[in-house]
Amino acid sequence: MNHRPPDRQTPQESRGPVTARITAVDTYDIRFPTSRELDGSDAMNPDPDYSAAYLVLRTDAGDGLEGHGFTFTIGRGNDVQVAAIEAMRPYIVGRSVSELCADPGSLSRDLVGDSQLRWLGPEKGVMHMAIGAVVNAVWDLAAKRADQPLWRLLADAEPEWLVSQVDFRYIDDALTPEQALELLRSARPGRAEREQQLLRRGYPGYTTSPGWLGYSDEKLTRLARKALADGFTQIKLKVGADLADDVRRCRAARAAVGPGVRIAIDANQRWGVAEGIAWTRALAEFDPYWIEEPTSPDDILGHAAIRTGVAPIRVATGEHVQNRVVFKQLLQAGAVDVVQIDAARVGGVNENLAILLLAARFGVPVCPHAGGVGLCELVQHLSMFDFVALSGTTEDRVIEHVDHLHEHFLAPVRMDQGHFRAPTAPGFSAQMHAGSISRYTYPDGEFWAADLAEREEAKAV
Amino acid sequence: MNHRPPDRQTPQESRGPVTARITAVDTYDIRFPTSRELDGSDAMNPDPDYSAAYLVLRTDAGDGLEGHGFTFTIGRGNDVQVAAIEAMRPYIVGRSVSELCADPGSLSRDLVGDSQLRWLGPEKGVMHMAIGAVVNAVWDLAAKRADQPLWRLLADAEPEWLVSQVDFRYIDDALTPEQALELLRSARPGRAEREQQLLRRGYPGYTTSPGWLGYSDEKLTRLARKALADGFTQIKLKVGADLADDVRRCRAARAAVGPGVRIAIDANQRWGVAEGIAWTRALAEFDPYWIEEPTSPDDILGHAAIRTGVAPIRVATGEHVQNRVVFKQLLQAGAVDVVQIDAARVGGVNENLAILLLAARFGVPVCPHAGGVGLCELVQHLSMFDFVALSGTTEDRVIEHVDHLHEHFLAPVRMDQGHFRAPTAPGFSAQMHAGSISRYTYPDGEFWAADLAEREEAKAV
Repeated sequence: MNHRPPDRQTPQESRGPVTARITAVDTYDIRFPTSRELDGSDAMNPDPDYSAAYLVLRTDAGDGLEGHGFTFTIGRGNDVQVAAIEAMRPYIVGRSVSELCADPGSLSRDLVGDSQLRWLGPEKGVMHMAIGAVVNAVWDLAAKRADQPLWRLLADAEPEWLVSQVDFRYIDDALTPEQALELLRSARPGRAEREQQLLRRGYPGYTTSPGWLGYSDEKLTRLARKALADGFTQIKLKVGADLADDVRRCRAARAAVGPGVRIAIDANQRWGVAEGIAWTRALAEFDPYWIEEPTSPDDILGHAAIRTGVAPIRVATGEHVQNRVVFKQLLQAGAVDVVQIDAARVGGVNENLAILLLAARFGVPVCPHAGGVGLCELVQHLSMFDFVALSGTTEDRVIEHVDHLHEHFLAPVRMDQGHFRAPTAPGFSAQMHAGSISRYTYPDGEFWAADLAEREEAKAV
Repeated sequence: MNHRPPDRQTPQESRGPVTARITAVDTYDIRFPTSRELDGSDAMNPDPDYSAAYLVLRTDAGDGLEGHGFTFTIGRGNDVQVAAIEAMRPYIVGRSVSELCADPGSLSRDLVGDSQLRWLGPEKGVMHMAIGAVVNAVWDLAAKRADQPLWRLLADAEPEWLVSQVDFRYIDDALTPEQALELLRSARPGRAEREQQLLRRGYPGYTTSPGWLGYSDEKLTRLARKALADGFTQIKLKVGADLADDVRRCRAARAAVGPGVRIAIDANQRWGVAEGIAWTRALAEFDPYWIEEPTSPDDILGHAAIRTGVAPIRVATGEHVQNRVVFKQLLQAGAVDVVQIDAARVGGVNENLAILLLAARFGVPVCPHAGGVGLCELVQHLSMFDFVALSGTTEDRVIEHVDHLHEHFLAPVRMDQGHFRAPTAPGFSAQMHAGSISRYTYPDGEFWAADLAEREEAKAV
């Protein structure tokens, strides 16, 4: 039967006692009505409804632990993303929990390498994001079983094991397993001190909350000042819809925060190469720290040209970069000053380990993309691992913070003086409250059912 | 309501008479059990079940015409691809048939640019292939309504209109609308003669039928000789699984066809950069014409390095290249000698027009990928348009021919002395027989239902 992966549902292995297995992959189409407040509005995404294609791995281990994971989307199409996660189900149900958690890379390789699913990418788009959601759910489960927050599970792991979790296919011209091992080994001295520092001070963040395109100048100014009062030393503004507006908004932001604070700007892929250079230069007088996503995330050579054209303004990208192969080239081509990993777009923690290692190899700082639904919760673990056990520094490194939707998570990010406090709860901070899941399930959850009924009623009047 | 695109289902426009509209988008999950014969086996795809996520656009025009389109996949995940096509339905149902057919680019732009769906790509993977299937179905309908095969509809179109069908976003650093217009205008002289030549001789093809990895050397030799007898002057061999096997198979193929016939080799993304160079060089003694897909389709810089490393052997890629932005860079970086468009991976005819124009601008020949289900049927139209009205030549240009599954199409490709005869039936040659659709629908069609029952029975015994 070629339409199913090998049967893994053997309930018991012949060589030993009953083995705990994955018994179910439950999926949920969760959508929040964020478009109504213009939170999250930018030049390419005027009306996002922040959503999650969400899954729960259940087991028969009897320990009450589940693995949670999700893909972030912005509304329509979240159902397609859920369907893609469901296509992974036969690869997971029936697997040994202990084997899976001891080596999440084995599942990652099976899913990425499946000869038929591969055609639908390869390693990009809906299918690859689904793989990422599933792989991240395994890491959540693994960290819970280890009774550790994920960042510490990774930071405490042996370099050899971490290297075994990375797929070097298509990147070994830039980073070999031996080089990766050397990077991890050379970061071992000082780990304990850095962990203490992390627990004491947290990891620096920056905030995008003042800068959404749909906000008035008054709201921008007020929120920029609040960001400073909250301890942030970097804010970000969305740009790219209208140059005159951008000039006015950048001026207002600079006036609000003064010269000492970094202002990043973010075009969300709005431009071609020439336009990106010209527009960014036109905002240079406000001293932007980086220009983010000036053009298509697929355009490596375009980013390189823009970087040359706008220097000394830095170029940042990554939230839509599909996989490690494109990140490798952005680094090889000298196309970016800042690598912006996203926890839920590539193939999960394993592929993000590859990207962190590539960035370390090229000496380029990683400043994760976050916001959306739960992206801050996830990605903080990756940056904290990187600080403790890989790059060993937070210099010029900041995690994006957006003050949205954290209340839906069991272990929401905790901010303190502009820093992410290190999570201490076991897992990947991915788990949402059961009540949030049921209320915002689309279209049958309480919120959407009521909303739909209201709109039907309004139509009838 | 943010989860639906604008309501287009107004049955009648106020300003005039009843307008024919798209009334339905019917979808089908069609799978052929090709894995049982090892047809189509290669180093990355050992057991493909050639499949189509297929759609039919129905209208209330009363003329009996339908638009057919599909994404080709190789089995598992075809259901996810169908779900993605279904997500497009609200954007299409209710549209005016005449407006849609007069300007398929408007739908293409709406789908590619949708602010929420865009997050799931952008412009890559499952969602982008779904857009391609839908857009191609519109072109099929448009050509049927014009009573022309698609290649002639395109070849006869005004250059200005063709340029209006292209999205120049992210490629205008390599090709401006003005340059595209100039390319098309300069190809106008001689069009009538080239059309006559095309109708008389057809368009040259090459065949992959001898070269599947699962075939014995005897079958390879027999089919290679048959290819020559059938008039082909180029064949292709799959390589990349085992070097000793490849040496033996290339030797057998060269012995079978002699020195005057081109033998292309195809690694289906099996290698990293260094391995790709070494392996290709190890086969150089058999004078391979091109090495196809030596590495990841995302690795522009990797292809450039391989091209330098294996010269004078040509480098070809494209069947998995996700969109025009990556093709642009492959050309800018001098990474390929041969551009291999695929009719059903990028965003449809509109994006393939962009890619053909880019290839013409850089002077690189286009040799389409085909085979699978219906890919020959589709892509021949694009090459024939290119010959008549853009590049003006078939020199070093060949369309891949694979002798599979053509019997399921109403207007199958017709080969004559190694050439594709120009289609004369109106449309895009995309339409499958109703009986084929119903028999091979998965899992409820006649074939699969019987197959499943048989396997259940075998299990019970």
